[in-house]
This record gives sequence, C-alpha cells and structure tokens, in this order.
Amino acid sequence: MSKTRVVILGATGYTALELIRLLLRHPKVEIVGVTSREDKRLVSQVHPSLSGLLDIPLEYLSADEIVSRCDCVFSCLPHTASAKAIPELLACGVKAIDFSADYRLDSPEKFQFWYSEPHPDPDRLGNVVYGLPELFRQKIIETNLAANPGCYPTSAILPLAPLVKSNLIEPFDIIIDSKSGVSGRGRSAKLDSLYCECNESISAYSVGVHRHTPEIEQIISNVAGKQTTVIFTPHLTPMNRGILTTTYSTPKIQGLTKQNIIELLRIFYANEPFIKIVDHYPATKDVAGTNYVHITAAVVGNRIITISVIDNMIKGASGAAVQNFNLMFNYPETTALI
Amino acid sequence: MSKTRVVILGATGYTALELIRLLLRHPKVEIVGVTSREDKRLVSQVHPSLSGLLDIPLEYLSADEIVSRCDCVFSCLPHTASAKAIPELLACGVKAIDFSADYRLDSPEKFQFWYSEPHPDPDRLGNVVYGLPELFRQKIIETNLAANPGCYPTSAILPLAPLVKSNLIEPFDIIIDSKSGVSGRGRSAKLDSLYCECNESISAYSVGVHRHTPEIEQIISNVAGKQTTVIFTPHLTPMNRGILTTTYSTPKIQGLTKQNIIELLRIFYANEPFIKIVDHYPATKDVAGTNYVHITAAVVGNRIITISVIDNMIKGASGAAVQNFNLMFNYPETTALI
Amino acid sequence: MSKTRVVILGATGYTALELIRLLLRHPKVEIVGVTSREDKRLVSQVHPSLSGLLDIPLEYLSADEIVSRCDCVFSCLPHTASAKAIPELLACGVKAIDFSADYRLDSPEKFQFWYSEPHPDPDRLGNVVYGLPELFRQKIIETNLAANPGCYPTSAILPLAPLVKSNLIEPFDIIIDSKSGVSGRGRSAKLDSLYCECNESISAYSVGVHRHTPEIEQIISNVAGKQTTVIFTPHLTPMNRGILTTTYSTPKIQGLTKQNIIELLRIFYANEPFIKIVDHYPATKDVAGTNYVHITAAVVGNRIITISVIDNMIKGASGAAVQNFNLMFNYPETTALI
Amino acid sequence: MSKTRVVILGATGYTALELIRLLLRHPKVEIVGVTSREDKRLVSQVHPSLSGLLDIPLEYLSADEIVSRCDCVFSCLPHTASAKAIPELLACGVKAIDFSADYRLDSPEKFQFWYSEPHPDPDRLGNVVYGLPELFRQKIIETNLAANPGCYPTSAILPLAPLVKSNLIEPFDIIIDSKSGVSGRGRSAKLDSLYCECNESISAYSVGVHRHTPEIEQIISNVAGKQTTVIFTPHLTPMNRGILTTTYSTPKIQGLTKQNIIELLRIFYANEPFIKIVDHYPATKDVAGTNYVHITAAVVGNRIITISVIDNMIKGASGAAVQNFNLMFNYPETTALI
Repeated sequence: MSKTRVVILGATGYTALELIRLLLRHPKVEIVGVTSREDKRLVSQVHPSLSGLLDIPLEYLSADEIVSRCDCVFSCLPHTASAKAIPELLACGVKAIDFSADYRLDSPEKFQFWYSEPHPDPDRLGNVVYGLPELFRQKIIETNLAANPGCYPTSAILPLAPLVKSNLIEPFDIIIDSKSGVSGRGRSAKLDSLYCECNESISAYSVGVHRHTPEIEQIISNVAGKQTTVIFTPHLTPMNRGILTTTYSTPKIQGLTKQNIIELLRIFYANEPFIKIVDHYPATKDVAGTNYVHITAAVVGNRIITISVIDNMIKGASGAAVQNFNLMFNYPETTALI
Repeated sequence: MSKTRVVILGATGYTALELIRLLLRHPKVEIVGVTSREDKRLVSQVHPSLSGLLDIPLEYLSADEIVSRCDCVFSCLPHTASAKAIPELLACGVKAIDFSADYRLDSPEKFQFWYSEPHPDPDRLGNVVYGLPELFRQKIIETNLAANPGCYPTSAILPLAPLVKSNLIEPFDIIIDSKSGVSGRGRSAKLDSLYCECNESISAYSVGVHRHTPEIEQIISNVAGKQTTVIFTPHLTPMNRGILTTTYSTPKIQGLTKQNIIELLRIFYANEPFIKIVDHYPATKDVAGTNYVHITAAVVGNRIITISVIDNMIKGASGAAVQNFNLMFNYPETTALI
Repeated sequence: MSKTRVVILGATGYTALELIRLLLRHPKVEIVGVTSREDKRLVSQVHPSLSGLLDIPLEYLSADEIVSRCDCVFSCLPHTASAKAIPELLACGVKAIDFSADYRLDSPEKFQFWYSEPHPDPDRLGNVVYGLPELFRQKIIETNLAANPGCYPTSAILPLAPLVKSNLIEPFDIIIDSKSGVSGRGRSAKLDSLYCECNESISAYSVGVHRHTPEIEQIISNVAGKQTTVIFTPHLTPMNRGILTTTYSTPKIQGLTKQNIIELLRIFYANEPFIKIVDHYPATKDVAGTNYVHITAAVVGNRIITISVIDNMIKGASGAAVQNFNLMFNYPETTALI
Repeated sequence: MSKTRVVILGATGYTALELIRLLLRHPKVEIVGVTSREDKRLVSQVHPSLSGLLDIPLEYLSADEIVSRCDCVFSCLPHTASAKAIPELLACGVKAIDFSADYRLDSPEKFQFWYSEPHPDPDRLGNVVYGLPELFRQKIIETNLAANPGCYPTSAILPLAPLVKSNLIEPFDIIIDSKSGVSGRGRSAKLDSLYCECNESISAYSVGVHRHTPEIEQIISNVAGKQTTVIFTPHLTPMNRGILTTTYSTPKIQGLTKQNIIELLRIFYANEPFIKIVDHYPATKDVAGTNYVHITAAVVGNRIITISVIDNMIKGASGAAVQNFNLMFNYPETTALI
C-alpha cells in the first residue's frame, strides 16, 4: 500500500528533529521534503544524529511545490509564519498539523492581545480543532487542520480536565506551577539559552504573562463548560527535556482523599493508550523519549494537588503531532509512538 | 589575638565540607577537630578538594576531649544524634550550632510526631534560638545554642515573613512550591541519590508530609503572631546546589501591585547584608556559592507570588552557621561570608 | 507465528531496563520472566518508566523454571554469577546472551588475573563467540551463547579494527582515551555514583588497570592476527549515557591523510547497518538512545586519531544484545533497533 | 593605605564576572570602571549575581579616561581588540593583564598563522611576559604587561614542565587530551553553545588545529630549552567549568614508576601555593571555584601519563590574572585567592 507523503516546514529546530525521528519509524510515512528559508544543507548536517538516516537537502519550497509533493504538512514554523503558509495548502487538499500557536486560540483578538501581532488567517479561528486526542479525538479524526497543543498546556490540561469536567474544583482558584527543560526554548542562538546560563540553575520566567496561559484557560473552560482562570508560573529547569507540572486547586466538596482523585483520573483516562495514572510521584525521566503522560494526585490541607510529567518534545510536541497525524489519516493511533 | 577553636561533629558530609571551606577563610577560627564515628582517614581524603588545605585526621572524640579542645562545636550529626551529643558540651561552656532538626521545633511532641522518635533532650525545646539572623539576631547574639534553620525553611520564611508580619496575607492559604538541588539529600549512598536517578529529571516528593513543614509553620506563625499553615511541595531538581521557592498567597486587601510588595520587602530587609530584593526573576545560579538571598515578587490575579533563591549549602546550611557563629562570638557578621 | 520467549536474569539495573524497552518494541519477543534474587516487586515499580507497559513481578527462578519457560535468556547478572547460571541453561537448549565479562576473555587464567576470582565455567573459555556482529557475525548466527561486548571495548575496537586488520598501525603503540557517562557504573548505591559526586566534574579512573583492557587487547589482537597492546584511560563524564573514545596510533607508512583513513573505515563498514563513518567530529548526543556508532578520523603530526561515539547503554550493552539475539534467532538484524 | 584602582575592559563575559567576584574580595583593589562597547546597563544587570555588590554602569571609555582613572587594566577584550587598546595605556604608565591571546605568542608571524589576522602591536611580541607565575614569577614581578595564559595551556604546561625541564621525556611524542567545561566557549550567543547542544554530550573539536597548540608548544619548548611538539585534542564536556588534561609522553629512560614521577612533580612545585601533587586521580570538582591545580601521574606500559585539573575560569583565567596582578603590584601572591 502506498505511504502518506509528508513535508516538514521549518525543519532546523528541535521539534522537527524529534518529529523526523518518529516519522522514520512510521511504516506508512514517507518524508518527501524538509524546508528552511535560508539553510540549504542536508538535514543530516543540521541534525548530525540523522547521518545516514535522512540525507535529503533542506529546500525553500513554494506552496505549489509542497502541494504537488505531499499529502500532509507538519509546520514547525514560528507563529504568524505558520498561519501565512497553511491556508493555501489546506485549500489544495493538503492536511496540516501546526506546531505553532497560530491556530490554538479561538479568536483573532485574543491572539493579537497575547502575541502583539494581527493574525494572518483570522477567519479560521474559532473553528480549528485543538489537537489533544484525549479530549478531542473525534474532531481530530474529521479535521484537515489540527492545532498541535503547547507543551505546558498539555501538561496542565490533562490532569485538570477530569477535575473541571466533573465540577469538582473552584474554577477561579487554580494555580499551575510548571518546570520545563530547556529544549522548550527552541534552537535559536539566544544568550538566555546558553549552556552556562541554564546549567546548574533554576529560575521562574514570564510569571503571570506566559503566552500559554490563555491556551490553558480556553481549553479548561471549554472542558468545564464555564469560564475558568488559572495562575501559571513556568520555571526553566536544567535538563534537556521534560515538563513536570504541579497544580493546586480547591475542591468544592469536603473530605476528598488522594485515592478519590486518583480513581477519578483513572476512570476518565481508562482507555487512553498514552495516559498512565500512577500512585507514586512520577519523575520526568519516567516518560523521557516517550509519548506517555504519568499523572498522580494528592490532597493536602484544603487543596487538591496534581502532578503530571511529559516529555515536552514528544507528548508536548512531536509525538502529539504524530498522534494527530495517525488519527487524521486513519492509522492506528499509537503507530510509531510505542 | 587568639582564635576561636572549633570542632566539627560529623565531618564527612557535604555541609561539613562547605563549612570547612568557609572556616578556612575565617581569620579568627582555628579548626581543631573533625569527627566521625567510623572514618579515620584524613578529612582531605574524604573531601579531596581539601588536599593540602586541611590534612588532619577524622577522630571519634569523647565529650571530654571536645570540651578540652574547643570553644564551639558545629554539629553536622543526624537528628537525635545531635541532641544526644550537645547537652554535655553546653554544660561545659562550649557553644553549639546545630545543623540537624533537633532544636528547631518548639515541643518534644511535635518532634516525635514528625520524626517518629522521642527527643533526646526534650526539656530544652521551646527555649532554643532559631538561627535565622534576619529575624532573630539579638537572640542569637545572646545564646550559646543556635538551631541552624533547614534549607527549605530559610528559602520560604524569608520572603513570607514581611507579608505575615504586616498582616498582609491570609494565614491559612499559603502555598510553597520549592525546587532544590540534589545536595540537599546529603552524602549517603542511596539509590535515589544516584547520578542517573537524578540527572535529566525533576520530581516532587514528600508532598504535604515533608519534615520542614512544621518548621516553616512554626516560624511563620511566630512572626505573624498567630497560627499560620502552609502547603509545602518540595521538588528534586537536577543541579548540585540551590533552592528556588515560589510562594502563592492571598492578599487581604485589593489592588496591591508588584511594586508595593517589592517595596515592602525592601524596607523590611533594608539593613540586611545578605538579602537582596531584586526586580527581575532571580535564578539559583545568581547566589550559587554565596550566602546571599535574592527575592522578588509579583501579583497575578488574586495572588501574591514571591520567588526567592538561596544556595542550599551556604545560606541554607553552612553559611548560615558561620553567620550565627559570628554573632555568637561577636565577630563582624559577614566575616568569611563575602 | 509464535514469538520467542525470553527471560531476563537480573532485571533491576539500567541495562535490563534498556533491554526491556527495546524488547517491548520487538514484534517477535515475549518477555516471560524477569528475575531478581531479592526484589519481589513488579518490575514497573523498580523501573517506573515501565508503568502500564510491563507490570510483571520480579521472581527468583530456578534453572528448571527458566528452561521450562523460555527459549533465550539475557543475563544481566554480575560477573561469576552469570557463568554459574548459564551452563545449566545451555545444556537444556536455552540460548544465552551474557552481559557480564564472564565469557569475553579467552582463558580462565586471564579471567582470574583481572577479576581476582576463579572462573566458574573455565572449560568454555576460548570457544565462546564475542558478540560484536560487525566483526563476528557468522559465528554469532551459529552460536547458542554470545558474550555481549563491554561498552568501552565496543567503542574502541570498532574504530581500530580496520586499522589493525589492514596492518596500517604499530601494534604496540595504541593509546585509547575514553569518556563515559555515569550509567556505565551501574545502578548500585555507591558513594562514587552519587549525583553530587559526578555532576559538574570529570575524572580519570582505573588508569592502566581497567578490566576492559584485556578484552580490547584480545579482540584487537585477534583481528590483527598478532599480539597488540593498548594503553587505556577511562574517564567518568557528567552525563547519563554515551561513550566517546579518542584513539591515538602510529601509522606504519608516511603521508596518510584524514581522507585516506575515513575512506578505509567507510569501505570496511560499507554494509553495516549501525556504523556511520562521518566527516565531522561526532558528539555522543548524535547516537544517544540508538544502536548507531559514529566514527571519524584525523591525522595530526605523526599520529592517526580516531573518534567514535556510542550510546553505552544501547550499542554498548542492550542494543548489541538485541542485535545478537536477532542474529541467533534468525530475525532481521535491525529489528527493534531502528 | 590607598587601594590600587583597576578598570576591566570588556566586562560582559564570564571571565570578567569571575574576575569581579575575586576582586571584590581583594582588600587592596578598587574597581573604578567596567567597559563595554555597546552595553550601557549596570554591570549587575548583565551579571545578576552582582546585584547589590557592584552596581556601577558599563561605560565605553577612551584611553585617556582609562588612564586618568586607574593604575591597572584587566583586558577581557577579544583578540586583536586587546592589542589595539593596551599599547596606549602602557605608554601612559598603566599596567595591563591581558586575557586574550594577543600577547602570548612570541612572533607576529605565528600570530598571523594561527589567528588569520595581522597583529596590531607586532613589535612587542617576543618580549611580553607569559603570566604563569609557577614558571615565570620573577619576570611577572618586574613587568607592566602580563599575557594571561590560555586555559588549556595552563592545564597542560604545568604537569609537563617538570618532565621536559628534567629532559625526562621525548620532545616530539607528547599527546595532550583535554576535556573542558562549556564556559571556555565564552558568553556569546552561538548555536554550538546552547544548553541543548552541549548537555548530555561530549565531543572533540578543533582536533590538531586548536589555537592553544602553538602556545603550549612555545612554552614547553622554552622550558625544555629545545624544540618540542605536541598533539592536542580538546573535548567539550557537559559541565560549566573545569578542565581535566590527560597527557601521554614517552620516557627517555626505562623503569620509571608512578612514585618517581610524583616525587619529581612534588619537588618541582614544592613551594607553590596553588599546586597540589596528589596520589589519587583528581576530579575537576576538587578545584572548582578555586585557583588550585591538582596533578597526579601514572606509568602505564611505555608511557608516562599525567592528569591535571583546574577551574578554567579561575586558574585558567581570572584567578591567574589576580595572581599576576598581586605579583605586579607587590601584594601577597595569594591575596583574594584562598
């Protein structure tokens, strides 16, 4: 049977590398193009771990060339660049999975507020499927454009969704304290991302103003069926990959135990291949290099605490993209992911 | 002028090493003994960084020998061992600075509850000075026994004290989310502390049941002048040293700004040589290897957030001990610390 | 078609974990037992990353039980323990792949000299196949017992083999300077393997006396067809996994260039699926998590320099074991490895 | 007594930060200026660890302004920029310690060959003192310009100098295999220095062509009293700071033992305050944050092996600079360094 031909837009970064690694294992995928605006080297020169595995050149492809070549694009372009490139491809029948934030928020105004730029494809907002299969699987199956979730949102939404869905917690008193590895910063040469700036150090950043905040609030509100707000504090942690998110929320009813919460989570995600509800406190290394999410919970004083871990590059980015791809192209959902 | 002669009890661990490094720089200190129950090697064989700097042997010393030899002990013994060793020394006029938790809590019952052992020196509890100079300087000057604070408590109490002291926040709704380097685990050969268990991973542990919880609550309540409780979640972070503590508390009054909180902190600690209130988000590397504490604050939604960083081995242990020592022996407080 | 049933002996360490991860991806393998002498927990409790993936208990199995249950054992037991367990299994028709050093050296005397213990199964030595497929593929296909190579030897033999095979370098003047991640130390709770002992530090150890020295010399001599000696210096590097080996050897002929050596390597390994000869200087991260080996060469002054990188846990241990397994059971050699 | 007033040229990098930390502890130094061509922020904004300790602004100062303000400059400028700035200052009586490579090599031709640029101050080359006090103390005392040694050269020259000085090893068969922390790369925002490029990975670079090669050869030849060549292979190691250098050399006489070499080293450096000859294999962490050098030796086969460790930022840069400063201004050599 023929393979699905894919092109990766913006293939010089870390998420693209992880995506390529996963797709090379996918028996039904053929990578037919990798793009870069400026870099013309072999993709294996940009990512030496691909030496001998994918030695095709980076190209700067027109929309026509992309359309003529493939069935699906994975866009690892930066925000606004993605929403400039994708509409034309969709119009020609190419499906798209977008890693950027362009299609995650549900209104151009919200986008403009948080990203300080007008949205290049405003009419589509409000109708794009959020590519978190555990919550929106059927819609993903039916879509031709999935907005791949942000890494922090994935780590925060998954533990909180069962709590808000069951109306168990107060909607305006949710604290999310996240700790992310450095790969979340991307692969651009910035002072803040230097080894000696990040190593042997942890710091908070974008406290209360991180762009993943509206994304988390939007999806949690959507699941809750009512307006919900969060306080979100990201921390930069000295490790390549992984996010651990600790959430603190206030139960609406008294007397809940750790086991109550764990049971609720277990039932909610009973059939999910990538979600494991565990009794112990998970570490990011438990899911490193995988598409799995490990979640546990505790009750302390008047608070429910959840702790979740993901690999920000896999379930937080490229693994989720492949999971969405599998759903959109009717392959078994776990293909190339276990 | 003659020097103050000190003995370090339990000198094979990381805090003892840091203490020795600091004391070697102290112009008024002579290290006249380092003890170990079992190890008889040179202390420089146990800590190779001391090669050529302190080549004296570890000894197992009786109380009499300690008393005859020194003016002050630093006890790096484990809990209960410390409170067994110290009373006899105090009785003979030796001053003591205790790194263990033995003299931090104010009642034997509380100690027994949290440490699951009877306290060896119960009568003294309730009267021992808590060695946090920024809050209890005068008492430290006058004492012959200082309970050196825990590392997490130092990082949490210092940002919160001004808030509770000024009655600015709700006393029963304080969340403390701390991230510590691995040296906080000590130097014993445990599976959990292996390089490959800790590296490239972050995890929560002892959620809601960490033994530093009652210590934080006791001191915060003391400063507040009323009962105060906290939810405390420690995380193990892949770095040797450093603690970053993020606190979330609820203001009692509306409309507070980040600058209000920072100003309050700045005034509260205006004369403190080791506390720096900063406008940016500090990183643990900013204070690594030093006795400094950097603190900032933010206001997000209905919450005050504080972020503080210390070196857990210095301000969180050995530096604080030297600071206490300086006060107890009437040396300039910053000697050997800047 | 039925699967090959395997038992893993000694399944609590890091190599066993990596092995399990690989075998879970192998479409023709069923893991029917994991053993431990003392631990009776689920293997997923010992290795939390296996939660939900392999939740079978560790067992202490007799030889009879092992034989009745499986077709093949992977022995991750320590040296001498392996050679005590394996003979009885071989006698009953179970094939074995041994991770320990027990079957690598070719004489009991050599074993006793380097390991300071008598060999438990001395008669077999000299006839066991060394499980490095790139050099001994046909023998591995035909054997029922493969001695899985040491991690350092794999990293050193592969770049040197083409040079000694072609008689290009002096046989008594080979220097091997290796840098290994900490996982090579295993998962036992030793002071030297603590995070704070290894992190932010590099050190040499076992200089000139490391037990992998005779293994390297034996295989290199075997390939060369004459006695060859090496000077081997291992270094402990602050990273979980990876070995980079730098070798210095003296060419027998003048005027060789970097490209000459690279070409020689390329021809020698032209058909090898896991060996990539590269022009740039490879980093251990290029092969992390994979069974690949990247090798390059340089000529500086009167020396040939080779630089090779492997993942010590995969090509240096568990990946090589699966590669051997595939050959011994007539599966495609790369199954579960790409 | 009045203090020595110093200006730091190019104060935004890592070596400048370390230098400032050391100088803040120096009782006889007043930092009267820190320069940057473009950055006008407070130096404590560029280096947050200096918050509250040195809150002076970066300035772009003319030579006249520098001369009018200070007695000594530490130049952390890049190569060629240093040699453009320094001559005018020297002419006006300001002493200088140069961190760049500009004044290390002894001829303009050599400089041009290795740095591909003409030297801006060619006439001085050949007469500048190499600032390695252990070998050139008296000359440093008498000079007004010291070329601060490179980090790799310091780590390689110190163990080799006693061997070549005593004519113990072959002069054309010296291999130097060095492993450096990432801070050696400096603080510029380059892709290769990103956290995720360096972490969990080791790699060789500039094999046989590193610019520190001629510096090592020049000083070793100088000490040997005859032409000497080396093969030098640097490796980038995932840690902030530290260099471990392993050297392999061929003894001219048979039968030497490890103890012979160690004894030779011990006698050679008997009176050196910062050199410790140790019997064990030292780790870079043993000297982290200090100006010490730990060296040991071994004899394996027909080779002498030396292993040395330094902190590349202290003894390999800023500590050495302060040591030179102390000598040039007649302060006790160890001031601010122990």
